[in-house]
Amino acid sequence: MRAAATSHWRLVDARPLPGWIVLGGRVYAMTDFTFDSALAEWSAAVGPDHVVTAPAALRETETCTFRTDSRVPAIVRPANTAEVRECLRVAVRFGIPVYPISGGKNWGYGSSVPVTGGSVVLDLGRMNRILDFDEKLAYVTVEPGVTQGQLYAFLQERGSRLWMDATGASPESSLVGNAVERGFGHTPYGDHFAHTCGLEVVLPTGETIDTGFSRFAGAKAAPVYRWGVGPALDGLFSQSNFGVVTRMTIWLMPAPEYFQAYYFRCENAAGLSPLIDALRPLRLDGTIRSASHIANDYKVISALRQYPWEESNQQTPLQGPLMAKLRGDLKIGIWNGSGALYGTKAQVKEARRLVRRALAGKASHLQFLDDRTLRLASIFAKPYQLLTGWNLARTLALLKPVYGLMRGIPTDHPLASTYWRKRTSPPAQMNPDRDGCGLYWCSPVAPADGDHAARLTTLASELILGHGFEPAISLTLITDRALACIISLAYDRAEPGEDERAAACYHALLHTLAANGYHSYRLSIASMYAMDGSDSYTALLKRMKQLFDPTDVLAPGRYVAAEPKEQGAFSPERDASYSLR
Amino acid sequence: MRAAATSHWRLVDARPLPGWIVLGGRVYAMTDFTFDSALAEWSAAVGPDHVVTAPAALRETETCTFRTDSRVPAIVRPANTAEVRECLRVAVRFGIPVYPISGGKNWGYGSSVPVTGGSVVLDLGRMNRILDFDEKLAYVTVEPGVTQGQLYAFLQERGSRLWMDATGASPESSLVGNAVERGFGHTPYGDHFAHTCGLEVVLPTGETIDTGFSRFAGAKAAPVYRWGVGPALDGLFSQSNFGVVTRMTIWLMPAPEYFQAYYFRCENAAGLSPLIDALRPLRLDGTIRSASHIANDYKVISALRQYPWEESNQQTPLQGPLMAKLRGDLKIGIWNGSGALYGTKAQVKEARRLVRRALAGKASHLQFLDDRTLRLASIFAKPYQLLTGWNLARTLALLKPVYGLMRGIPTDHPLASTYWRKRTSPPAQMNPDRDGCGLYWCSPVAPADGDHAARLTTLASELILGHGFEPAISLTLITDRALACIISLAYDRAEPGEDERAAACYHALLHTLAANGYHSYRLSIASMYAMDGSDSYTALLKRMKQLFDPTDVLAPGRYVAAEPKEQGAFSPERDASYSLR
Repeated sequence: MRAAATSHWRLVDARPLPGWIVLGGRVYAMTDFTFDSALAEWSAAVGPDHVVTAPAALRETETCTFRTDSRVPAIVRPANTAEVRECLRVAVRFGIPVYPISGGKNWGYGSSVPVTGGSVVLDLGRMNRILDFDEKLAYVTVEPGVTQGQLYAFLQERGSRLWMDATGASPESSLVGNAVERGFGHTPYGDHFAHTCGLEVVLPTGETIDTGFSRFAGAKAAPVYRWGVGPALDGLFSQSNFGVVTRMTIWLMPAPEYFQAYYFRCENAAGLSPLIDALRPLRLDGTIRSASHIANDYKVISALRQYPWEESNQQTPLQGPLMAKLRGDLKIGIWNGSGALYGTKAQVKEARRLVRRALAGKASHLQFLDDRTLRLASIFAKPYQLLTGWNLARTLALLKPVYGLMRGIPTDHPLASTYWRKRTSPPAQMNPDRDGCGLYWCSPVAPADGDHAARLTTLASELILGHGFEPAISLTLITDRALACIISLAYDRAEPGEDERAAACYHALLHTLAANGYHSYRLSIASMYAMDGSDSYTALLKRMKQLFDPTDVLAPGRYVAAEPKEQGAFSPERDASYSLR
Repeated sequence: MRAAATSHWRLVDARPLPGWIVLGGRVYAMTDFTFDSALAEWSAAVGPDHVVTAPAALRETETCTFRTDSRVPAIVRPANTAEVRECLRVAVRFGIPVYPISGGKNWGYGSSVPVTGGSVVLDLGRMNRILDFDEKLAYVTVEPGVTQGQLYAFLQERGSRLWMDATGASPESSLVGNAVERGFGHTPYGDHFAHTCGLEVVLPTGETIDTGFSRFAGAKAAPVYRWGVGPALDGLFSQSNFGVVTRMTIWLMPAPEYFQAYYFRCENAAGLSPLIDALRPLRLDGTIRSASHIANDYKVISALRQYPWEESNQQTPLQGPLMAKLRGDLKIGIWNGSGALYGTKAQVKEARRLVRRALAGKASHLQFLDDRTLRLASIFAKPYQLLTGWNLARTLALLKPVYGLMRGIPTDHPLASTYWRKRTSPPAQMNPDRDGCGLYWCSPVAPADGDHAARLTTLASELILGHGFEPAISLTLITDRALACIISLAYDRAEPGEDERAAACYHALLHTLAANGYHSYRLSIASMYAMDGSDSYTALLKRMKQLFDPTDVLAPGRYVAAEPKEQGAFSPERDASYSLR
């Protein structure tokens, strides 16, 4: 092990780890170093080809859909769990923070950019093996680099009768990355983290643990039963910086005999509340098993087209008569719902009756769509338009990706909406980070209750329009009792001053919603301050961080902040004869 | 604050807490004391009426359904969260372990008996308030003393359309106690801990935390959304000794429009495997939403009657021709299934068709029962028996409590089976602890797969019969992919030597099942050793215990063992001038 000839140390007062020194009964970790020494150790760990310091690659990793100032000095790409452990060891030894990413596609929340500047990005993309698969018990065990598209292709190749759940982020998104962020999709398995178990986690202390029954060698129920025995630890490794998840079992859904999607609209703003109250009982009683979805006009329009720069005479925000005209042109409501029914033909038929009955008088244009009608509609779109004047092809273009998502088929279609305010069309290979698409996602949770839905969306809409942006909002019945509200704040980073204006709007929005009791289910790298709740809870999290990561090198500040430590260079005068162990 | 004139101390080397002393840079907690001083402080905290030292009450608390040697020096009964905090403070100050119980009805796993002898029992039974209730969002928030029967009465009184989930333990069981043990019931909300959120937890460090969104004052989604934001901590407070859960939100199930139970039998032992494989797809696709259940002949017979001492000429175990005769007399199969369908009439009708189709050729006597047929059957039981010779009344006596449980109606009927080997009849007020009913419950988990079910039950049956007891076994489809197997080992504690023989059988059973990969989902106070898995996991749990409970006073050894500490009286020679702070 090589070390710099002169080293600097900081007081940590924790259990000594290899490479630290103990002086006068106190514990010091190295903090100042020749960065090259650390790079050399990482290179030895993962191979020199997988330690990236090329400026272009670093700039790319530092760039997300809003302004950040974190600088990334290097990217390290381990190939397996042992290399991850070794990478963390080097990080601890040199006191250099590392920031794990799986796919780095955390769009709207910070992509691959570390919360804390100076962090080396630990890119887990090479760990992309599907380690286990069971058709009968319906699960798959994956490494963090496995993407949505990869799993979809894997299932297709095998002619599997299982469906995955996908987010709308993109086929290149990581399954594990989304699950540990507690993201969601659109099928009955929409609450991703709730459909996982058996995590393998590398801790900064150098230990590797397996959660649930996985910690017992040969445990038969390891991939099928979440809790294991004793305290259940899985939750600790979601939305945290306590360990690096290097393996996870994900449960899959058996394809139903029959599938039917439904779509509906509501033409008046006040109609949202009765809609939510009509859908909640169906979600609670299991008639609707999937994460049903209601999007406002802005959300739908931004998925269908870009900002109407010409028609608006370059004015922002979009509102009033032009908005009404666009709704009419595109045949959409102020609120636009979708969802799906899964089961046998008879089960779906009865669910259809119940959805119809619940939405009667509350929604218009309720339509049910299955594979057959979708195929027919595609064929007859043109003659249909001649007869009715309705551009069915355009409607289908909108419906199809959502239709696919409700069957767990990954798509990058929703990404197009991040180009909403751009003045050029989305390219074939979309990359919002690269293309200067401005996007913040803000994701408050509310009870599945009409009054709350109305209050939350009104607060958000008024605030965002007041800041000169469009409030693109969707509400998802993420569980039986809760709504996840996703508010997209899209802008053009190429416009001078827009980064600052959007940031101001975003922070005001978070503040207002929290002040009204609507807290986010997930935070961006710019909003980790929203973790602050009760003092005792915050203090407990800090102590846990200290336990899992005594030197605070793993994703510092990501959801959990460490207790500030006494910093300072080691004084050679105090003890000149120290050496690395 | 009063303290004994002379005190003894033990080295703990943790963050000093109030009342500890720091000497020579090391931290000591008081360990030897005048027990009366602690009792006086507890009395001041909860009132003298709620500190119990009457020998009869202590003996009762020390007694469970198998032999233990833990002695309980006192019972302390706090009335609210503030008193719990104060009780823990006293425990920490004097270094006296405390063992929280909610209802103390942890039958078969140790009832109210502490894992570690000398523990003061912290009885939370007085904290029995229902703090919040929401009919629309379908939840209730309760303290740990709220019993199953109490919640059931509460819902009935209000004419609520919500159903709770109940275990078969007894109406006096605590809801919170069962949920934190991750117990289960029989409705779609059978996985109890999975249907809770928003825990209030008092930590031995003196802090009180609220989990999920509850930590934000006024958060609207606190009672409806599990995860909150940041690391999810709820799991840490299930099956652990990290904190005392003093409040919990429990989700309730809307009563379905229609309910139908089903029952079936299988006359041959090898029929279990195909049955499980037939039911799994229906559970996975949501047709069966409840915790469907298959019990062997021993389980059913022990619920219907006591041991056939006379017919067997006092021989044990029960097996062979006599067992076959009893099955014939009682009209039961070797395997006996039950479950329920919930929904609209049409939903239940379709589910019935699918259950019928799945079980065709695999089960016999498939019957569906609803309120109407149950009422009619009760009326016509006698004439029916005259006509058919079948004792329908006896069958109904068996079916009714299970029927009720599948609708969330608490019952103490299953308790009768704990009197299986007794030579006197169960009394009207059953109390297995008091009445010397011997009972161990062993609860391995397996994948919901026929081969595993067959292997697990065969292993258990052969082993238990070999030890001279009856293997009463049930398998519950607790989740979509997992079977919880509950093995009851019932015996008569009044028989000399039976405690020892049953203990030997129980430990051999746990060992054999674990060696074959079937680990228990829940442990008894006699089997906490089964927590030992991988070293790194065990080490992590020990460190977490140290973080949550630096002096190891909260339920020591319950699921998590503390790191052994250097014990020893404080030496006055080393420093004669110490004082309490």
